[in-house]
Amino acid sequence: MCGVEFDAMAGERSKRERRSQDRRIVRRRVHGVHEARLDRAGQRFLLQLQRQTGLLISGKTAEPAKATLVVHTDHASKEVQEPGEDEAYTLEITPAGAKLNAANPLGVLRGLQTFLQLVDVSPDGFAAPAVSIKDQPRFVWRGLLIDSSRHFTPMEVLKRNLDGMEAVKMDVFHWHISDNQGFRAESKKLPKLHGAGSGGAYYTQNEIRELIAYARDRGIRVVAEFDMPGHSSSWFVGYPEIASTPGPFKIEEEWGVMDPAMDPTNEKTYKFLDIFIGEMTKLFPDHYFHIGGDEVNGKAWDANPKIQEFKKAHNYKSNDELQTYFSQRVQKLVNKHGKAAIGWDEIFVPGAPKDIVIHSWRGSKALAAAAKEGYQGILSSGYYIDLMWSAARHYVVDPLSGEAADLTPEQKKLVLGGEATMWSEYVNWENIDNRIWPRTAAIAERYWSPQSVTDVNSMYARLDVISERLEWVGLTHRSQPRKMLRRIAGPATPQEFAALKMLADVLEPVKDYTRGETTSYTAITTTPLNHLVDAVPPESDVARRFDEKVSAFVDGSCRDANVAAQLRTQLTKWRDNDAPLQSPRAEGVSCERGCAEFAGLDGGGDVGLSGARRDNQWHAAFR
Amino acid sequence: MCGVEFDAMAGERSKRERRSQDRRIVRRRVHGVHEARLDRAGQRFLLQLQRQTGLLISGKTAEPAKATLVVHTDHASKEVQEPGEDEAYTLEITPAGAKLNAANPLGVLRGLQTFLQLVDVSPDGFAAPAVSIKDQPRFVWRGLLIDSSRHFTPMEVLKRNLDGMEAVKMDVFHWHISDNQGFRAESKKLPKLHGAGSGGAYYTQNEIRELIAYARDRGIRVVAEFDMPGHSSSWFVGYPEIASTPGPFKIEEEWGVMDPAMDPTNEKTYKFLDIFIGEMTKLFPDHYFHIGGDEVNGKAWDANPKIQEFKKAHNYKSNDELQTYFSQRVQKLVNKHGKAAIGWDEIFVPGAPKDIVIHSWRGSKALAAAAKEGYQGILSSGYYIDLMWSAARHYVVDPLSGEAADLTPEQKKLVLGGEATMWSEYVNWENIDNRIWPRTAAIAERYWSPQSVTDVNSMYARLDVISERLEWVGLTHRSQPRKMLRRIAGPATPQEFAALKMLADVLEPVKDYTRGETTSYTAITTTPLNHLVDAVPPESDVARRFDEKVSAFVDGSCRDANVAAQLRTQLTKWRDNDAPLQSPRAEGVSCERGCAEFAGLDGGGDVGLSGARRDNQWHAAFR
Repeated sequence: MCGVEFDAMAGERSKRERRSQDRRIVRRRVHGVHEARLDRAGQRFLLQLQRQTGLLISGKTAEPAKATLVVHTDHASKEVQEPGEDEAYTLEITPAGAKLNAANPLGVLRGLQTFLQLVDVSPDGFAAPAVSIKDQPRFVWRGLLIDSSRHFTPMEVLKRNLDGMEAVKMDVFHWHISDNQGFRAESKKLPKLHGAGSGGAYYTQNEIRELIAYARDRGIRVVAEFDMPGHSSSWFVGYPEIASTPGPFKIEEEWGVMDPAMDPTNEKTYKFLDIFIGEMTKLFPDHYFHIGGDEVNGKAWDANPKIQEFKKAHNYKSNDELQTYFSQRVQKLVNKHGKAAIGWDEIFVPGAPKDIVIHSWRGSKALAAAAKEGYQGILSSGYYIDLMWSAARHYVVDPLSGEAADLTPEQKKLVLGGEATMWSEYVNWENIDNRIWPRTAAIAERYWSPQSVTDVNSMYARLDVISERLEWVGLTHRSQPRKMLRRIAGPATPQEFAALKMLADVLEPVKDYTRGETTSYTAITTTPLNHLVDAVPPESDVARRFDEKVSAFVDGSCRDANVAAQLRTQLTKWRDNDAPLQSPRAEGVSCERGCAEFAGLDGGGDVGLSGARRDNQWHAAFR
Repeated sequence: MCGVEFDAMAGERSKRERRSQDRRIVRRRVHGVHEARLDRAGQRFLLQLQRQTGLLISGKTAEPAKATLVVHTDHASKEVQEPGEDEAYTLEITPAGAKLNAANPLGVLRGLQTFLQLVDVSPDGFAAPAVSIKDQPRFVWRGLLIDSSRHFTPMEVLKRNLDGMEAVKMDVFHWHISDNQGFRAESKKLPKLHGAGSGGAYYTQNEIRELIAYARDRGIRVVAEFDMPGHSSSWFVGYPEIASTPGPFKIEEEWGVMDPAMDPTNEKTYKFLDIFIGEMTKLFPDHYFHIGGDEVNGKAWDANPKIQEFKKAHNYKSNDELQTYFSQRVQKLVNKHGKAAIGWDEIFVPGAPKDIVIHSWRGSKALAAAAKEGYQGILSSGYYIDLMWSAARHYVVDPLSGEAADLTPEQKKLVLGGEATMWSEYVNWENIDNRIWPRTAAIAERYWSPQSVTDVNSMYARLDVISERLEWVGLTHRSQPRKMLRRIAGPATPQEFAALKMLADVLEPVKDYTRGETTSYTAITTTPLNHLVDAVPPESDVARRFDEKVSAFVDGSCRDANVAAQLRTQLTKWRDNDAPLQSPRAEGVSCERGCAEFAGLDGGGDVGLSGARRDNQWHAAFR
């Protein structure tokens, strides 16, 4: 999935140059520069090769190597990764071996992934084609957002998704860590944030540091988002004093745009945020601090007479103007703590510092407008992977398309890249992998490869291969849907399961946000995601391939009798599949002799999860 | 998979009794008894319910519970679990809820697994049938042996297999941790054991303690085996002075019965073993210490004139008698360190202490002979799951069948149970789950349930269900073979993969030890286990089901035209499946323009695994 250019390698350095290089390295070594990150990358690389090839990593060194991959890098890593840090590398593979060269470790990380893409099992071991690759990304900000608020994302799930991001050379993990439905980051200074606002499901600061280190190992920055002044009900459960209305507040259980918002007219709010931003900017080392800013409906402000007075006194004609005031104050706080603010379109306000990044959910028009005024931006509109669109539909969206295509070359440089957004209303630990992958690999390619690479059929051919590789990385986007389907099938016979599978293979979840509109599945914390709609991947490969075949047949490009017969056979199979699906079978538990029905699991009672215990007796409550 | 007896519950205790019981509990609490193990079991239970049902564990407690599972236990756990510790429990499920009662925590662990077996998804949540179960195991020693020497077993693989053992109520993990092909336990007192004898792949003492704690949480004892005086080449790499021949020795790379053996005539050997056993009996808290003792071919003893002299001086007529001498000395050392010895048949020697356990690979005749002389024993003959037998073939073997069936009731009590043995010549991290599961669940049932439960068809029906559940536990016995098959298929089209799958679905690996005899796959450390034979499960469900149908048709019990048509359709499908399998396709990497061929992975070079690094340049050597 990388932009591969077949290019002549730059000439070998002269011997003397190399010698001087060696001396420099030795000198460096004396000065203590050591890149443990690359050692660990080497370990992961071998482990991944082992998985992909099924070969053993032998502990022996006696036998001479048949071929060697030599990795060279010139500079040590920066202490905190920055957007724009050089990720270029060259990879040369000849029958004699392979050479990977990069100016700095980031390039090595990217090049190793390319090598892993090239490798395949051969009769005697494995092999990689002879190529000469000179490669670097088009955009410096290639992100994936995971919303850990609506549904908590366990650490192991985050980690394997970071592994997936590394495999497709993404470099920003945008951690949407607070929202109405849960405040998920531990705060030592304001402990009621996670204490009252998370229902117990939050990341400790140690876990956060662990995840940041894990991401850094993979050349991935972690940008935390604390959405404000809206999307903040969970903050107010513990700290109602910074809200615009008196409360009481609760952790929201539905999804949608909520009324509660911070009080932008109260100095307490800014004192609170000063402490909070001070703590969090220390915890998250990245230069950018995401302050959200989206979807404030203004109802809470309208309901508060003091806020109305403040608006009048400042001559603000709209709540938008009031939010501008809030944004300006918060951006100053972020700067005060040495960071630059990033936020959704709404933070692009008059007088905003020039170092902010506009995160656009609105689209390229907004992005272009910001760039014209000298502001950096990234695009997420078109990359909302929770909408269940096809990979192709995301793939054609380019951060530099639409209005942004008309920017000057200098202005275009301000468009740093984009982010796929995994909002988690209908996403939990179990199906998140298959919601993100493999589609996000297509988006990652969009961010990395030349704008001219747009062939959708070619993309799908490569997506099949990368999807396979992502399973070896440890993601469960293929295996888990099958398990979920088995659970739905219950005590089905193999034939019945095959029938369900055949049906499921051509289904896709409803698109956009229509699921919430047409069903009652809006209660995030209690709606189980164990339905057929949750178990089928966003995009049906079977349906797509059939569609391709039908299209070719219909437009005449492939109309031989053979294809007609294939299409007919397939249609007949689907028609005949209805009978086994209709077979009358007992659903789930047989209750003929009575049974205990439990509605849901309750981890907050006396059993383990909350730590409570009554001597030798405990209760697991099922609601 | 448990022996379920539908039984009237014992009458409720009187109120006063319960009150006095409560007082006792409170008193205990004051004295500091706290069973954190049960809290953790509760957490695991809810997590497993979440996985099996797809329901959310909610953090809320506000809504009243629809039904409750009340768990009660009378006594605290023993500090070190013993064979025979009470595992009985009663489980009563009524429409009002469920009650699980057990004398001690082990019974609770077993009962929770039964509850998990009973639960299924219902339209509104989940449900369990109304039952009253009074349950306890038939045998107290229900073991699984994993050979971590021939192929190192990563910690996470061991852990998920312990989870599987818990699910099928097994209680002994026999850790075959040293053999010719690797000494895998860290020794602080004799550091060259793992240092020179493991090739770097060993468990630290911290990891060992972690695994023991993990097993204990699941009601599983860990019995370590250090095989001696044979099966010990790896010991001699670092300590040739205790061997019978001068060496030098190496970590064995082939498999089979090897010549090297400890020198039983040298006092140094016993001094060494005294130190070693002293250290290891502290590390492994279980009362039993497995000293192996099997397969000494005597060649090393024959080759050493001093040993010959010793035999003459002691009037030993055979090497067996010499081994008896060795066994007697080692058993005394084990006793000296406060433990009882367990070993293979060979340790059953005249004068052996009465507290030893004979671990029989020879069969029930040997076991019965030992029992008649008052010795305890366990059976593994018939449970060698590395032989690739069907579940049915293992299932019919009973520790009390054959000669053991004729023992007196008192003698029968000396037969403690059995162990399934996962020897790992052809087993690694990737396929071990599918070698162990689900077949071992059938063996576990044999150990737990009444001897009269022998219906093979009924067993298979239940095995399908438990196999499903084991996937939810985290085992990969179903998902990994599919991935391995995909790797073999390489860049196959979906149709081609389906054809390979159809073939693979009716294949089974060669049985017994014929693979080693008919191929050159005897080099353990270098033979990749990425072939078709490694990817197909030991037993084909498709073939078994077809066989059942054919048998019923042939014997006349089911000879209608419909069945005949089904059989014909299936046979036609298999016949027609050959064409897509034969389609000529490029294998693996296209080498048209040349390619780099690598034979295998070498982790011992300059890249990560060994920790070595040359400044900013490192080499991944491919042999």
